[in-house]
Amino acid sequence: MAPATITIANGATWQDVAADRQRHRDATIAEIRPPVPELRKEDIPLNTTGIPKKLLTEQEIQITNADVEDLVKKITSGEWSSTTVTNAFLRRAGLAQKLTNSITELLPKRALGKAAKLDEYLAVNKKPIGPLHGIPISVKEHISIKGEDINAGFVGWVGQVAEEDALIVQYLESAGAVIFARTTQPQTLMQIETDSNLYGITANPYNTTLSAGGSSGGEGALIGIRGSILGIGTDIGGSIRVPAANNGLFGFKPTSQRLPSAGWVAAMAGAESILSTTGPISTSLEGLRVFTKSIIDQKPWLRQPGLVGLDWRDSEQYYPDRKIRVGIIYNDGIVRPHPPILRAVNELVGKLQKSPNIEIVEWKPWKHDLAWSIIAKLYFADGGADVKAAVDSSGEPWRPLSKFILHENPDVTQHTIATLWKAICERDNYRTAYAKLLNENPVDVILSPAGPSVASKHGTSRYWGYTSQWNLLDYPAIIFPAADAVGDAAREKPYEYPEGYQPLSEKDKYIYDLWKEHGAEGYKDAPISLQLIARRFDDEKLFRAAQILLEEAGLPAAVPA
Amino acid sequence: MAPATITIANGATWQDVAADRQRHRDATIAEIRPPVPELRKEDIPLNTTGIPKKLLTEQEIQITNADVEDLVKKITSGEWSSTTVTNAFLRRAGLAQKLTNSITELLPKRALGKAAKLDEYLAVNKKPIGPLHGIPISVKEHISIKGEDINAGFVGWVGQVAEEDALIVQYLESAGAVIFARTTQPQTLMQIETDSNLYGITANPYNTTLSAGGSSGGEGALIGIRGSILGIGTDIGGSIRVPAANNGLFGFKPTSQRLPSAGWVAAMAGAESILSTTGPISTSLEGLRVFTKSIIDQKPWLRQPGLVGLDWRDSEQYYPDRKIRVGIIYNDGIVRPHPPILRAVNELVGKLQKSPNIEIVEWKPWKHDLAWSIIAKLYFADGGADVKAAVDSSGEPWRPLSKFILHENPDVTQHTIATLWKAICERDNYRTAYAKLLNENPVDVILSPAGPSVASKHGTSRYWGYTSQWNLLDYPAIIFPAADAVGDAAREKPYEYPEGYQPLSEKDKYIYDLWKEHGAEGYKDAPISLQLIARRFDDEKLFRAAQILLEEAGLPAAVPA
Repeated sequence: MAPATITIANGATWQDVAADRQRHRDATIAEIRPPVPELRKEDIPLNTTGIPKKLLTEQEIQITNADVEDLVKKITSGEWSSTTVTNAFLRRAGLAQKLTNSITELLPKRALGKAAKLDEYLAVNKKPIGPLHGIPISVKEHISIKGEDINAGFVGWVGQVAEEDALIVQYLESAGAVIFARTTQPQTLMQIETDSNLYGITANPYNTTLSAGGSSGGEGALIGIRGSILGIGTDIGGSIRVPAANNGLFGFKPTSQRLPSAGWVAAMAGAESILSTTGPISTSLEGLRVFTKSIIDQKPWLRQPGLVGLDWRDSEQYYPDRKIRVGIIYNDGIVRPHPPILRAVNELVGKLQKSPNIEIVEWKPWKHDLAWSIIAKLYFADGGADVKAAVDSSGEPWRPLSKFILHENPDVTQHTIATLWKAICERDNYRTAYAKLLNENPVDVILSPAGPSVASKHGTSRYWGYTSQWNLLDYPAIIFPAADAVGDAAREKPYEYPEGYQPLSEKDKYIYDLWKEHGAEGYKDAPISLQLIARRFDDEKLFRAAQILLEEAGLPAAVPA
Repeated sequence: MAPATITIANGATWQDVAADRQRHRDATIAEIRPPVPELRKEDIPLNTTGIPKKLLTEQEIQITNADVEDLVKKITSGEWSSTTVTNAFLRRAGLAQKLTNSITELLPKRALGKAAKLDEYLAVNKKPIGPLHGIPISVKEHISIKGEDINAGFVGWVGQVAEEDALIVQYLESAGAVIFARTTQPQTLMQIETDSNLYGITANPYNTTLSAGGSSGGEGALIGIRGSILGIGTDIGGSIRVPAANNGLFGFKPTSQRLPSAGWVAAMAGAESILSTTGPISTSLEGLRVFTKSIIDQKPWLRQPGLVGLDWRDSEQYYPDRKIRVGIIYNDGIVRPHPPILRAVNELVGKLQKSPNIEIVEWKPWKHDLAWSIIAKLYFADGGADVKAAVDSSGEPWRPLSKFILHENPDVTQHTIATLWKAICERDNYRTAYAKLLNENPVDVILSPAGPSVASKHGTSRYWGYTSQWNLLDYPAIIFPAADAVGDAAREKPYEYPEGYQPLSEKDKYIYDLWKEHGAEGYKDAPISLQLIARRFDDEKLFRAAQILLEEAGLPAAVPA
């Protein structure tokens, strides 16, 4: 029997609770066989992505370097058993923890048990059980896994045990997935980095001085180093997209109410003015698609009735014989992106302009500062009382970015019902106005930075606008790797801030100062993903556009392993 | 130039404002040519439905007795011009006002102007402009019509003029409709009868001692006497369905967020925990379908981005080769329906049981009392402050049923954000539990009474549960005429309350006492419609089921003229 969980309710200090959670995490990693190699801190370079190749077997590397679409074939053909695949990912994930601190626990017993059943099923039936047969999937901690602790990043919530799997986990398992790892998230879940008192900071595998992003930062870092190739995140302001972008991955924030959220645990249950959504992060575009389709094909609205009863539509039907009209956002008018981001947008636009199948136009961001003020007034409609109570229940200190978004955020408003209704009307008016602009200038998709910089220095991700914009509008968005990583100063020079640059705003100054302080060298090796956005419910059309754009630009639809 | 509107803001009393609105109404009716026949009060019988035939021309009767599907053909073929059709409906609607008090104003200038353009279009192009070419449509007052006063039933709001047509009106006009009449609604819009200080009571054309229902009661009464054959209502607790049922009509409450609501005016703007929905009332099932499809085919979500981007699906695809499984609600467990309603359900079930294409099972209502308590706690989340302010701004008296639902309703709660979120979680838990029951016992549609009685005596519609249940669940529902009208005591006898009946609840006692007091004679000639319900977003499937059920039961899909 497992030792009892140490909790605040049982009289422990927050430090005791955190230490116990970490002990528990390490114990689950210690169960992996063969044991995960030990690493000395001093042997870990800034860029950790070369380490797994040195410490894992050749087959483990082959397996974990495969993408979802390849892996399904190899398992179904019998080349690799699900058991072998699962163990390879457990080993690489265990190693990933030592490199980037992205794991809350591994689930070897559950995963290998499921894998054995899948292997048996395939042997007996000679066909896969579903479209995700044998695919290992990692899960952000606040999405319930039966029998496991579920704390949503609050020390005070440790000790709560999930009675059943979250609905999305159930659908993924029905489709053949193997749930094998749980991943870190920040205190409050309302950060776009990953920093909690339970586990500390999750680092970026490409440069450990940089953030993995957040709030699904454990997923970002883990998939970034291929300790997983498909994971579940959640996004209310960028929490799938920032980690995907920071780690050079593919990520998908669907239109809300298309993928199940039932069974996740978070503060502010019942808030619905701005909806969070679940979605995938993966090493390939096809990984995102098959994840989403395999769930929607099971009609999740029959069990979570708030979801929209809309079948997954075949993406191939879109753009059969016409150009895709792409609106470009270079700069949202509030914060100028750092040079590497501008480089990525400009290089990609240059490639797309040569395509006969793409029409490029500029998309003028319309009052994205107003958009932020509207969404920020709705994030914590109770003035943050519920989140504050959850943090303060344990006496744990406020992490800097939690404090920033809640205590230091001038837009946070303690609403009455009357002011909430007014704020909702403002939200709807903004949405209507934005739709009108799109009707007048009908672009199919918008190409935009995913943030003002590549993965930021730890603790400095204070500008959400490039991602939260699309939560306010509830538009689906795909993140995809778009350009070479940050190089030396010469590579970034053509997109440097002009001499004597005058920041557009306080926010712009903050971001500008970061570049002045750190420069290209400070962000060395950080990958660059961009964001493609479509109108609400155009999820399938967005996938088709992303596929065509990548083809036309000569970019791979999967991260090179 | 029209005389200035008399308003509270200009210092008038509420009585002055109401008198002015009624003068305005009468003036618009006086514009109709030939003039609408005068009627002496003493010449109006209890059942008014025979009157139009006596006072209108034969052609006017032929035109207004046609249903939507016939009328489109006759206009398109050139048999009747849109102008002739429009004038016939203006005349019958003017007469309807004198019989049942259902009109706030007629719009002869706008309607005949549009009709002339349609006639010209047809002459030039030899084809209709859209699927509703020439169909006159009546509109509940709180749905904006450009240049017209818009007061939502509050005396204090008179004087507000709509700057443009509501979005749904724009789509209907694009499809060829002719907007020709505006109709009454109750004070607060939160009654299931139609009683306001502006216009008084709207009566039922089949028996003027009975209610037309509400809140779209003007539509119900007007269409009931065929002063219109297609109208726009809105429904948050039964406001399309009760008027449709009370007047023996077809009515459709779609899943929310499928039809546009932008441009309606009501209290509590921004409230979204329980969504109201627009929808049609018509003399035929096909009228409901073509109304809905003609709007959705124009992709209204592009202009009202809160709508779901879901195309209208072809109904014929459903039930190609299998039985429809119909769950029957005889009694919701809270209030036993009056004998005529039980007769209608039992007779229809008897007919359907003979069909090889229908499977009948009982559907056990699950905690419909809890459902009412949940929805009633969410209707006025500000404790009714906004509605109270709107009523009290003019000094107008509270109408009895407004007082009942707001001042005398023990569930009304003045929420904080925290208690609102809790109430939303209770709503979602209930929805999930109901979905689970349907998953375990998968009926395709539920057949239920539309209320505990036929059209009620004025002022006695105090039980919303048979309709509000499906607002809480956001399930689409169709009302259809199902049985012979209320007859003498002998006709209703087989379904009489048993000797020594013990009411199930206080609410049941109230309804039981009404029957004891009035009996069959009191409800004489009241038509009987029932309600067919499907799961959320199964709107198209519901239409197909309704069509098949009517065929199998040998019931007409249109009201016999």
